[in-house]
Amino acid sequence: MTERPGNWGKWGDDDQRGTLNYITPEVTAAAARLARTGRVYPLSIPLRAEAPIWPGRHKNWHVATHRNVQGPGPGGAEDILMIHTHGTTHMDALCHVFRDGQLYNGWPAAEHVTSRGATRNAIHNVGAIVTRGVLLDVAGHRGVEHLPAGEVIAPAELGAVAAAEGVEIRSGDAVLIRTGWLKIWERDADAFNRSQPGPSLEAARWAGRKEIAVLAADNSAVEAFPVADGLPVHQEFLRDQGGYLMELLDLDAIAADRVWEFLFVVAPLRLWNGLGSPITPLAIC
Amino acid sequence: MTERPGNWGKWGDDDQRGTLNYITPEVTAAAARLARTGRVYPLSIPLRAEAPIWPGRHKNWHVATHRNVQGPGPGGAEDILMIHTHGTTHMDALCHVFRDGQLYNGWPAAEHVTSRGATRNAIHNVGAIVTRGVLLDVAGHRGVEHLPAGEVIAPAELGAVAAAEGVEIRSGDAVLIRTGWLKIWERDADAFNRSQPGPSLEAARWAGRKEIAVLAADNSAVEAFPVADGLPVHQEFLRDQGGYLMELLDLDAIAADRVWEFLFVVAPLRLWNGLGSPITPLAIC
Amino acid sequence: MTERPGNWGKWGDDDQRGTLNYITPEVTAAAARLARTGRVYPLSIPLRAEAPIWPGRHKNWHVATHRNVQGPGPGGAEDILMIHTHGTTHMDALCHVFRDGQLYNGWPAAEHVTSRGATRNAIHNVGAIVTRGVLLDVAGHRGVEHLPAGEVIAPAELGAVAAAEGVEIRSGDAVLIRTGWLKIWERDADAFNRSQPGPSLEAARWAGRKEIAVLAADNSAVEAFPVADGLPVHQEFLRDQGGYLMELLDLDAIAADRVWEFLFVVAPLRLWNGLGSPITPLAIC
Amino acid sequence: MTERPGNWGKWGDDDQRGTLNYITPEVTAAAARLARTGRVYPLSIPLRAEAPIWPGRHKNWHVATHRNVQGPGPGGAEDILMIHTHGTTHMDALCHVFRDGQLYNGWPAAEHVTSRGATRNAIHNVGAIVTRGVLLDVAGHRGVEHLPAGEVIAPAELGAVAAAEGVEIRSGDAVLIRTGWLKIWERDADAFNRSQPGPSLEAARWAGRKEIAVLAADNSAVEAFPVADGLPVHQEFLRDQGGYLMELLDLDAIAADRVWEFLFVVAPLRLWNGLGSPITPLAIC
Repeated sequence: MTERPGNWGKWGDDDQRGTLNYITPEVTAAAARLARTGRVYPLSIPLRAEAPIWPGRHKNWHVATHRNVQGPGPGGAEDILMIHTHGTTHMDALCHVFRDGQLYNGWPAAEHVTSRGATRNAIHNVGAIVTRGVLLDVAGHRGVEHLPAGEVIAPAELGAVAAAEGVEIRSGDAVLIRTGWLKIWERDADAFNRSQPGPSLEAARWAGRKEIAVLAADNSAVEAFPVADGLPVHQEFLRDQGGYLMELLDLDAIAADRVWEFLFVVAPLRLWNGLGSPITPLAIC
Repeated sequence: MTERPGNWGKWGDDDQRGTLNYITPEVTAAAARLARTGRVYPLSIPLRAEAPIWPGRHKNWHVATHRNVQGPGPGGAEDILMIHTHGTTHMDALCHVFRDGQLYNGWPAAEHVTSRGATRNAIHNVGAIVTRGVLLDVAGHRGVEHLPAGEVIAPAELGAVAAAEGVEIRSGDAVLIRTGWLKIWERDADAFNRSQPGPSLEAARWAGRKEIAVLAADNSAVEAFPVADGLPVHQEFLRDQGGYLMELLDLDAIAADRVWEFLFVVAPLRLWNGLGSPITPLAIC
Repeated sequence: MTERPGNWGKWGDDDQRGTLNYITPEVTAAAARLARTGRVYPLSIPLRAEAPIWPGRHKNWHVATHRNVQGPGPGGAEDILMIHTHGTTHMDALCHVFRDGQLYNGWPAAEHVTSRGATRNAIHNVGAIVTRGVLLDVAGHRGVEHLPAGEVIAPAELGAVAAAEGVEIRSGDAVLIRTGWLKIWERDADAFNRSQPGPSLEAARWAGRKEIAVLAADNSAVEAFPVADGLPVHQEFLRDQGGYLMELLDLDAIAADRVWEFLFVVAPLRLWNGLGSPITPLAIC
Repeated sequence: MTERPGNWGKWGDDDQRGTLNYITPEVTAAAARLARTGRVYPLSIPLRAEAPIWPGRHKNWHVATHRNVQGPGPGGAEDILMIHTHGTTHMDALCHVFRDGQLYNGWPAAEHVTSRGATRNAIHNVGAIVTRGVLLDVAGHRGVEHLPAGEVIAPAELGAVAAAEGVEIRSGDAVLIRTGWLKIWERDADAFNRSQPGPSLEAARWAGRKEIAVLAADNSAVEAFPVADGLPVHQEFLRDQGGYLMELLDLDAIAADRVWEFLFVVAPLRLWNGLGSPITPLAIC
């Protein structure tokens, strides 16, 4: 009999939530106590047509309809929005990637993933994520503006950054990795997309051992790329560990203020059978 | 010289944030201390095609694209989403309604509201809302499943509900009014849309005097309707006071658990020049 | 060895155009000679949100953006359109339906049909259809406003209608069947969708023997329904014969004018890898 | 009293169809007699994401949904399409541009053009255009692959091309101007968009005097640009003369075959209150 990958079965054969199981009410309550000063940092990139979006996806459409802007009397305006849920700042549901026809926890993709979405591991199972957030500012730790294109970050470095910041990774944490790469986007969108720094496959395994619930970064896919074999961090962390990936976060403001740990809140759209969601993650300290 | 309406000018002639000015870091930090047990309630209705949406708007489109669900090897899936930002659970930006050609704080609508959105008072100015939430369970206080169609709630009753719950409304609060009307939607969508209970114009004025930052409800537009003159709560609270309206919240779970006050977190999409945003408001206690 | 269905292989193993092969330049030139008086009838239903669309599909979205409607100086306006290609008046590409994993002419669906469209038998192979059109006004021939819900039309009746009209069906013809059912839509959209009259499976086989290129009707799917087994006319005519189906045509005006034969022109959008297209079919006489 | 521009009032104060009034049934019937050989040329560019589209508009979205591609039993697939109607090959409705707050024939834009489209001069009034088409192959006449960027074509040259081709422009004609510029798009999309050759304002006036119904070209906006003042051909031909503009046609095949006159058929989508439509124009000879 073959061994089951990662966390499959760890929370029952019916589990669809993966590492969110680490975030108990106690973890949430402890995280809330980090919100001491009441400062709130939105960590998303503005949602507009010209935003960093994975090549091949379409840019965001936003159209406004309006009536009676001249007056007299009442008038109003509203938006229509067409987006990839995985465009700009977003999180992946546990059904976003799969391998050998199986989703996290062994659900068969051919049965559960259709043009109408996913009937297992979908974003609507998330509810909300309220836990401790830890910023690992790798670029800051190295003293560089950004890591080099294609640079692969090993777990040892992540541990060293945490130690330097005086934080200890705990079960249920959201770990936000700052590579500095987002700055490239404003200068040269093509260069931004061509190659990116990010954590290694080993780092994803380390995240699993540390019982990290969320892995986020200021790049397009958390991953370094180009990479040799598909999306190794996605397959390891999301599909095998049942972990949550968040991408295209803007971590510059919390890095500048040296906010290393904080209350981290993410409330994805409750998109039924959805594969992901645009998000505005919050750091509250 | 004519008097300026409501809060116009109160936070400067350039202000675009209105009642968010009440939510100081101290208000936020105090609210965070309400998150004692670590329970988290998402207050949104699932985002799907068949959801309560104001008549005349289109239902939500959600399409998934996918590859290699059969395996072997890696596969993936992702969403495309087309929505009215004011469909299902959402918040209004301060540019959503106007009167006599003027937005909140006097900005001219003809100049600032176009097919591309609003260049003043737009949703991207919000950032995030992290404050104390107070549930006013009017239906529960009356001991009814839901208020009658078209019922108008006076400020005196809101005060009586708060008193019975033992909470005092404070500056910067988010006040969530539960009418019970959402239950009608599942039974009869047409009846749900035809007429709804909600707070009166006087209640909106009361909210202004109480320095409430957010007014939310479990109906389509906060307002009672049909009403005699346009959307009086919108014009008074949003356009004149600079207050934030949130609509189509599901308040049944917090009412059932009698969670009267809580940490309230809303992180709208940072839609550039947007008139509103779909949201998943959170009550954390 | 199993026999290949219908017209598979008839025009070569690589054929992707099916019955369009019947429409030779001679057929087109002969059809053009029917345009004697210069009268032109558009046969489509207006494309608007409230239009007959197969239940489960979304209604058409149409939004206009505009600038400077007040002047002075130049202004402009333009449309954004979001539609199912198979909503309202439309035609099916030969990749629209399949059975046992095979498209018309044996192409494997699993290989050629993805979230990006179809790489065989797609609408972009059509180009245009310019041939003789024949109206078979079954409702008119029976002397009724419309056929009953669910009524199945046998080939014998189609032959009788043609004879009464004095037209002979020829290779390459577009045959337009008028059931009168479209009138129901305006009165009661639910009744319109619940059950519809249409040609039988035998009629689709008759169309194959007659070498009809196009089968069109004033109902939702050409087919009668509810039907016992899937969409038999689609499987027989489209998938097995390589024939083109056009749906939700408005045939009332040509019926009222007793235009039995005419130059028939359809120019679908050249949607690359598309499964169908909205159309405005023309009858010119 | 000020003189009314161009053709305003020529077909009555209520007219919304402009130069289509030139296309009488006699004109249509005469045009149909040009379809002698039965050859059909679709003149549109394939509708796909990567297609020539005016900068600032979004590329076409096309998504396919599908079920049961593996079998056994029936399966199906269909498209969802999101487009600017003025993207890729399209025609403008008479409400597309305006000046000093007035549409063709004096309709006030502020009253008739809203987020829901136009209630005067909209595309749904067109029905279909079936008339004589004339190709004026300016590039071919000059013996060049394409005209230079920004080149402005004077009416004298259009007359000279027609004379060289042996065709005489007549009332109700659709005149298709070939600049060769479309070839640039495949080589360098930025260069294609930066500057284009096209007819002069004087050429638009000439088209008015010749009672031309349709002016089309193989560039983005018929117009040469950059131009000094707005879109002079649009204002003159569309807004003042009530004429129809068609853009981004592929005229290479008819030019290669030296098809100078032909039956020209355009059947726009009957988009209610629409400002334009994607089209597949046909040349039949």
